[in-house]
Amino acid sequence: LDTAMSPKITGELLKHLRQVMKNCKYFSEPIQAYIIPSGDAHQSEYIAPCDCRREFICGFNGSAGTAIVTEQHAAMWTDGRYFLQASQQMDNNWTLMKMGLKETPSQEDWLISVLPENSKVGVDPWIIAADQWKNMSKALSSAGHSLVAVQDNMIDVVWTDRPERPSTPLRTLGLEYTGMSWQDKITTLRAKMTERKISWFVATALDEIAWLFNLRGADIEYNPVFFAYSIIGMNTIRLFVDLKRLSHPTLRDHLQLDSPSRPELSIQTFPYESVYTELQAICAALSPKDKVWICEKASCALTQVIPKSHKAPIPYTPLCLAKAVKNATEIQGMKMAHCTSVFFKTLLAVLLTEISAADKAEELRSQQKDFVGLSFPTISSVGPNGAIIHYRPLPETNRTLTTNEIYLIDSGAQYVDGTTDVTRTMHFGTPSAFEKECFTNVLKGHIAVSAAIFPNGTKGHLLDSFARAALWESGLDYLHGTGHGVGCFLNVHEGPCGISYKTFADEPLEAGMIVSDEPGYYEDGCFGIRLENVVLVVPANPKYNYRNRGSLTFEPLTLVPIQVKMMNTELLTQKERDWVNEYHRKCREVVGAELERQDKKEALEWLIRETQPVV
Amino acid sequence: LDTAMSPKITGELLKHLRQVMKNCKYFSEPIQAYIIPSGDAHQSEYIAPCDCRREFICGFNGSAGTAIVTEQHAAMWTDGRYFLQASQQMDNNWTLMKMGLKETPSQEDWLISVLPENSKVGVDPWIIAADQWKNMSKALSSAGHSLVAVQDNMIDVVWTDRPERPSTPLRTLGLEYTGMSWQDKITTLRAKMTERKISWFVATALDEIAWLFNLRGADIEYNPVFFAYSIIGMNTIRLFVDLKRLSHPTLRDHLQLDSPSRPELSIQTFPYESVYTELQAICAALSPKDKVWICEKASCALTQVIPKSHKAPIPYTPLCLAKAVKNATEIQGMKMAHCTSVFFKTLLAVLLTEISAADKAEELRSQQKDFVGLSFPTISSVGPNGAIIHYRPLPETNRTLTTNEIYLIDSGAQYVDGTTDVTRTMHFGTPSAFEKECFTNVLKGHIAVSAAIFPNGTKGHLLDSFARAALWESGLDYLHGTGHGVGCFLNVHEGPCGISYKTFADEPLEAGMIVSDEPGYYEDGCFGIRLENVVLVVPANPKYNYRNRGSLTFEPLTLVPIQVKMMNTELLTQKERDWVNEYHRKCREVVGAELERQDKKEALEWLIRETQPVV
Repeated sequence: LDTAMSPKITGELLKHLRQVMKNCKYFSEPIQAYIIPSGDAHQSEYIAPCDCRREFICGFNGSAGTAIVTEQHAAMWTDGRYFLQASQQMDNNWTLMKMGLKETPSQEDWLISVLPENSKVGVDPWIIAADQWKNMSKALSSAGHSLVAVQDNMIDVVWTDRPERPSTPLRTLGLEYTGMSWQDKITTLRAKMTERKISWFVATALDEIAWLFNLRGADIEYNPVFFAYSIIGMNTIRLFVDLKRLSHPTLRDHLQLDSPSRPELSIQTFPYESVYTELQAICAALSPKDKVWICEKASCALTQVIPKSHKAPIPYTPLCLAKAVKNATEIQGMKMAHCTSVFFKTLLAVLLTEISAADKAEELRSQQKDFVGLSFPTISSVGPNGAIIHYRPLPETNRTLTTNEIYLIDSGAQYVDGTTDVTRTMHFGTPSAFEKECFTNVLKGHIAVSAAIFPNGTKGHLLDSFARAALWESGLDYLHGTGHGVGCFLNVHEGPCGISYKTFADEPLEAGMIVSDEPGYYEDGCFGIRLENVVLVVPANPKYNYRNRGSLTFEPLTLVPIQVKMMNTELLTQKERDWVNEYHRKCREVVGAELERQDKKEALEWLIRETQPVV
Repeated sequence: LDTAMSPKITGELLKHLRQVMKNCKYFSEPIQAYIIPSGDAHQSEYIAPCDCRREFICGFNGSAGTAIVTEQHAAMWTDGRYFLQASQQMDNNWTLMKMGLKETPSQEDWLISVLPENSKVGVDPWIIAADQWKNMSKALSSAGHSLVAVQDNMIDVVWTDRPERPSTPLRTLGLEYTGMSWQDKITTLRAKMTERKISWFVATALDEIAWLFNLRGADIEYNPVFFAYSIIGMNTIRLFVDLKRLSHPTLRDHLQLDSPSRPELSIQTFPYESVYTELQAICAALSPKDKVWICEKASCALTQVIPKSHKAPIPYTPLCLAKAVKNATEIQGMKMAHCTSVFFKTLLAVLLTEISAADKAEELRSQQKDFVGLSFPTISSVGPNGAIIHYRPLPETNRTLTTNEIYLIDSGAQYVDGTTDVTRTMHFGTPSAFEKECFTNVLKGHIAVSAAIFPNGTKGHLLDSFARAALWESGLDYLHGTGHGVGCFLNVHEGPCGISYKTFADEPLEAGMIVSDEPGYYEDGCFGIRLENVVLVVPANPKYNYRNRGSLTFEPLTLVPIQVKMMNTELLTQKERDWVNEYHRKCREVVGAELERQDKKEALEWLIRETQPVV
């Protein structure tokens, strides 16, 4: 394995943090353990530099992980995607806790096993979700310890050069991109609130707020969101955001800040930080029957403001569900955004490194119409680096693309009309029989999901095994889910649907939802294979219609050739070969037409060559 | 649809029950709603006549359902298997609540919608599980109502001719059947308790107690169990059972009641009813660190005896898991018990009705060695009756087997060495193209599960969709799970594993577990198709072994020919045809050898005819 990725040295930092944990300036008594979750106050998956506290303390910069520091120990929990990466980025002060393995203790069990009696375990209540707080608190209490909310974040105390919270310019999106005005979205939300007898709704997820107001920002790299909260009542709309951001006339006009069309659609604006006191004021004035909707995943700090008798926690908000089901305008935009497959062509032409290939991909992408930025850091990996599932090339790990090793690229971008995410695995020489066998099993899984027909109301987790059946038959598997929801010029990972063996927060698939289909296979120390398309849930019309439930299937939005050289076509069934040929026919038809329009002859020739039918 | 199945007339009964609900003799104040779950105090699925309270009050006699009576309404919730049956068995006083449909309210939501403010909802704490009590109580409290424990069961008050609780003779099972002495089972259980720092274990499930002590009874029809509780400490074993049952010397010897080999294996016996006071006494003497294991599904009454600080609730007990993984002796017994397929042969020979066919099947079964009784009421259904998923033929619905309609038989038996459960669907004339298409899709689903290879640690729910993929592709489906755990001379339905789209109480599959594989298709008013084998989880040896996890697959224990006439073999892949031929080869080899041994020529000829290879 490549050992060039050097770990962060954390000895002094941990010493300093442990002093802070004992210092009664920050909490009324010494605490014996401090939990550092990976999230921000909005439970974002990608976070701004100022919120990368877990990375700061342990060095591991993957998207998921929780660090816990006690007087004696320091441990960090992450999942199968990140085992290799985390072990390379953390020094010996840290124990890597591999989640999903039988022998790995849960955070609660581990704490209970190492803590002295009657310990205090601290956490910042703004960056722990209410449901996680509850579970952790219960487990610790049952063992005689207690979970305590530490208002000053202790990492921030030791983090002397912590960056500022970003406040990028806001961009308004018109009806031609959103298909629905923010006023109509508010009205729809209020109808749902009336139906469920809810008086107030507290929006805390950044992508939900961006979607609701048809605004975009750039506060978090790759995710076009901005730091804000919103509280919506039946007659009022409160928006909490850095007020400096609301000065531009286009924006004031978009939000009708100076001349609201109707009083109940008038937006009151408040500073970002005042959400806590404002929510307190709202809660103080509640009538006995008033109920307040807040997501179970919202921060413990905000959730605890709402008195128990008024709190109506929900696993996912109505905005989350509404946002997941794309309207016709959004679907059209997503299709346009995906008409960009040609950048893959250039990768084949020149000898590159992982980094220069990623840069080249970004450069080519940036020439596309309506390009805003990448939707996540490009994964560009050669040979053994491909087995690090969420690998990101760094100068010290950078490998050169050769004709001897498999190349895996997972790349996505934000366009004003949509968000993309695609993975292709290629060989520029002659792949081995084993590599082809693995690739073909991954392809079979990809097709099994993409071509599946299933009843309306089916949850994504029921499709996950389709992606694995062929791999399982050979004794192989991959340790990540098969697909995630994809936003429309929003987060590339979004809820509440997905395709995973994990069953939490998994709402039934509906026509208009957009998810990824991305099985893989990773041979540690050798290569990684993943094949990912973004797919749209569409109605299917099978022969029968049991109990009038209706059926669904997927339509691929991603249109990038799948390298035939990597396939062992003898392992494919006729149905699977037909699927590959039909998919390549569609790539030619849609992308080819665009290339002809742009008069890109060389690219068109490449496309035609790469989409020859398999027999 | 057949309307001969007449509903129970419940007007007077409900009137009487509502008087009792208002009578402060039974509860300190009037209650506005009374919940009648279908279970007994042991959360058994099949129950003794004295416990059939839900059937008594509403007429519906399916295995799953909950009735709720308020001052104005009476409603009964059941699942998709029973929609038709329940609508036929209940009169107009009752509203059928179809669980699993989007528009059907949950019991909690419905109660909240119909109850006046501050209502009391009563339930017998012995027949509601602790987890159900908790959920129901929480939901009702949040709406201003309260769930109250009514000690005298109110159905028993109005049920004047309620039967006695059974107390059948107990049968001891030697090592040649169990493969493990009860002493060794206790020792293994105590090792698990030590590992988890548990001082006491309360066993409440009847099959777990029967399995633990290597005893069988006949208290519940079809299930060889007996009414008992057991509480196991590190040095004591308490058995609560009707003491009259323990007088036989064989039994006293088996349990070493008069001369225990070691003091910690000495069994103290108590009357069945004294479990409550005895558990109270144990709890009163607990040390601060003592923890008591009790299943989350145990009765609310017993669970609430254990103080919260000592209670360690578990979703399934160590006995449940140990019982599910069969040892070599049990597997051998199950194989012997399944060598009985020949009774199907006779059904083809003579013209019968649903009832006479079921009787014939039982008669033929009863001639087998070690036969004890049926393992569930035989489902013997012709044409439209087959669409009633848990149909049981009655004189007024009895149809004749003809050459025009599909015949479905689902039959199982208890033998001293094992428990069987098999479903076959047959046509004695010429099935229609649609019937064959449906059958073939069901067969494809059955094979997809039976032949699946999957990693060690896979939960059954991840295999459920394999059984549906072919049906889904045609727009068809079935509204029940695909498989259930099967006991060894124990309950034909047992936890903690199964194959279902429902994910609760679903432990990973392990080699030695035994489940059913039974997809189906039901065309209301026309026919029912189901194809069920009992299958054993066995290690598989695919080409590779990812991360040394190992792989599993299934070995069919049921060996009964699948009617080739019902198949549209053109719809089968070569792999599926190979599976059918290999399965039929095994039927011939194993059952054929037995028939030769018994010199049953005619049956052997039938077997050979029914197992001709398909091409």
